[in-house]
Amino acid sequence: MKEFEYSAVMEEFEQWKAQGLSLNMDRGKPCLEQLELSRGLLSVLDFDDCVADGVDARNYGELSGMPCAKRYWAELLDVRPEECFVGGSSSLNMMYDLVAKAWSNGLLHSPRPWSQEERVKFLCPVPGYDRHFRVTESFGIELLPVKMAGSGPDMDEVERLAADPQVKGIWCVPKYSNPDGFIYSDEVIRRIAALKPAAPDFAVIWDNAYCVHEIQGDYVPFPDILKLCAQAGNPDLVFEFASTSKITLPGAGMAVMSASEANIKYLSKLMGAQMISCDKLNQLRQVRFLKDKAHTLELMKRHGEILRPRFEAFLQELEEQIKPLGIARWTEPKGGYFISLYTAPGCARRTVELCKEAGLVMTGAGAAYPYGKDPEDSHIRIAPSYPALKDVEQAAKVFCTCLKLATLENSRK
Amino acid sequence: MKEFEYSAVMEEFEQWKAQGLSLNMDRGKPCLEQLELSRGLLSVLDFDDCVADGVDARNYGELSGMPCAKRYWAELLDVRPEECFVGGSSSLNMMYDLVAKAWSNGLLHSPRPWSQEERVKFLCPVPGYDRHFRVTESFGIELLPVKMAGSGPDMDEVERLAADPQVKGIWCVPKYSNPDGFIYSDEVIRRIAALKPAAPDFAVIWDNAYCVHEIQGDYVPFPDILKLCAQAGNPDLVFEFASTSKITLPGAGMAVMSASEANIKYLSKLMGAQMISCDKLNQLRQVRFLKDKAHTLELMKRHGEILRPRFEAFLQELEEQIKPLGIARWTEPKGGYFISLYTAPGCARRTVELCKEAGLVMTGAGAAYPYGKDPEDSHIRIAPSYPALKDVEQAAKVFCTCLKLATLENSRK
Repeated sequence: MKEFEYSAVMEEFEQWKAQGLSLNMDRGKPCLEQLELSRGLLSVLDFDDCVADGVDARNYGELSGMPCAKRYWAELLDVRPEECFVGGSSSLNMMYDLVAKAWSNGLLHSPRPWSQEERVKFLCPVPGYDRHFRVTESFGIELLPVKMAGSGPDMDEVERLAADPQVKGIWCVPKYSNPDGFIYSDEVIRRIAALKPAAPDFAVIWDNAYCVHEIQGDYVPFPDILKLCAQAGNPDLVFEFASTSKITLPGAGMAVMSASEANIKYLSKLMGAQMISCDKLNQLRQVRFLKDKAHTLELMKRHGEILRPRFEAFLQELEEQIKPLGIARWTEPKGGYFISLYTAPGCARRTVELCKEAGLVMTGAGAAYPYGKDPEDSHIRIAPSYPALKDVEQAAKVFCTCLKLATLENSRK
Repeated sequence: MKEFEYSAVMEEFEQWKAQGLSLNMDRGKPCLEQLELSRGLLSVLDFDDCVADGVDARNYGELSGMPCAKRYWAELLDVRPEECFVGGSSSLNMMYDLVAKAWSNGLLHSPRPWSQEERVKFLCPVPGYDRHFRVTESFGIELLPVKMAGSGPDMDEVERLAADPQVKGIWCVPKYSNPDGFIYSDEVIRRIAALKPAAPDFAVIWDNAYCVHEIQGDYVPFPDILKLCAQAGNPDLVFEFASTSKITLPGAGMAVMSASEANIKYLSKLMGAQMISCDKLNQLRQVRFLKDKAHTLELMKRHGEILRPRFEAFLQELEEQIKPLGIARWTEPKGGYFISLYTAPGCARRTVELCKEAGLVMTGAGAAYPYGKDPEDSHIRIAPSYPALKDVEQAAKVFCTCLKLATLENSRK
């Protein structure tokens, strides 16, 4: 900490400011080169070949989705087609809908709708995905943070908290967790599947957002949580979600919910009041373009090749500039869209503020915590996917300057 | 009634049965010839031309929709772009979502979420759209029927019932109402806009599903309900919905909610917890294909030309076979997707049953009433759009036989 001088760092910072930069690493948005990989998507559908398994994708019907789309997801997630409800373009929307249904009608094993409970609480592994937390927050559900480790959420804590019948569920991103990029260990997954919560309608929301999203190394196979839950006597505990937003085109992909057949049946009945069918043409478009798991994994390698240098560029700058100073630690994920960086306590918000002053927009500090409040004020989410590589390189330098400056300011207080 | 003989009608019926027909007039589904009109839709998007108004339709963002899509709807519905939230493919889903938001969070002027009210009631003009009623029913909302006349719902009754603070809204299909095909009169529309309900968060759900869906004659212009409400001092009373499902491809179109800017702002904040953005690529696809109102109306003329002979064939058969007997009356709509037929009391369910025996599936009798219960058992919804013309002709004959048989059976009781 003493090896860098305030005046030198301040000068660096002023130089960045003078450049009038406009860099953005706010969200996990795929970059233009990644979009290019889906160029063929828009022309893959032939108007005269839109009937599959006897279902005309160009007309109403098939609430739970095109059969070929269910088979596609079943292979990708290692579940059965009957366990898949293929929806619209947004898996977040499907997760929201699940909570909304719990709120208005209750889930399969609910004694009453959640809106009629005195109080509802939800477990939020932290740091986590801000939009998950916001879903539950928007219903007035109380958010309880649970610490994440490299192997997943602190399961002792999860088991302890789940003994409270007001605790109705947990948010999980089991593979390349947002934002740490951790993969839940087999032991953690086993304990989640075997959870015995006090609430009979406890819901594990298993957002497998990055199920095939490697950036380093080979595809990492992943256990079928549905089967593990069933084996543990909890067949209806889990709701798994995924989408092709970061496989084809963001916001225009195909989302899926996978759950026990009993859950799918129960929820389909409720969803029958909500819609006639989702956009089956887009489902067919996605399946025609992505074909199957093998073809999807090939495509994901190309995504990985585009993302890898961006992650490496940022990590390398941290390695060179920050590691010798020992003022922060960070994750080095092999997949997903984010790097987590932990500053000294009290420095995250200021670092992000300084970045903004220097023309670099980062995810708001604290965003990865319930109610946007990081009690340590030490976590920063880094999203290197969207900017061009040269911009990531520059952003990394700007970031290092700001991190150093914030740390120095803090140590002078 | 006496001019037709039971034995002759029974013989006709047995002849139909012997043919092993498989005809379906259950739902308002566009037919294959109509789908053909949108052949160009699947190839209209150029991957290199997906940025409009600075928004890249291929990436995340723009919760309330592509600006060009808002302008498209604003012109079609005679509202302002700022009053439009362009969503996914289903307007029904958007209406459901509105009720769901009222349920979990309340609307702009709600004293509390509807889930926290002792009781919530909703006005249902009858006969009406079964899926509307089912949306509110799925939340446990009590459905109160209000009689429809050729000019729209019985407004004396609506005003009387809206004086109950537990009555929170009304379902309306103002143009070519489902299933009667009536157009609300200016006087009825004016009274709806000027409604002074006891509930401060009363919602007029204005499903303009058939806003440009003429089958006979020229396009019928329609007043802007948002402006009328504002002029009557009720700016936040109404939520208008429409979609291109019956303009381009069913279930794969683009839906819109139009409401006051204050409502759009309030609901956008809630929807920000639900999703990042809808499928903007499909929004752009629809706009590129449909261009503008003039071009859309040209396309709708061609839809009308395909639908007209189907409606005429059915009506002609009724005219020839049923009118002389005086055993039913029916509507002769100039747009929309349905004909309403009214049998003598107690004959509708039996007519539909007999149709099924003879191989013709009709919408379930009573479907157009809350809880599926037509107190008179006299209403049948006829949906002639989907079958081929020759099948509509045959279905009309089968229907007439069954109607006669059911009426005869009833008179013999």
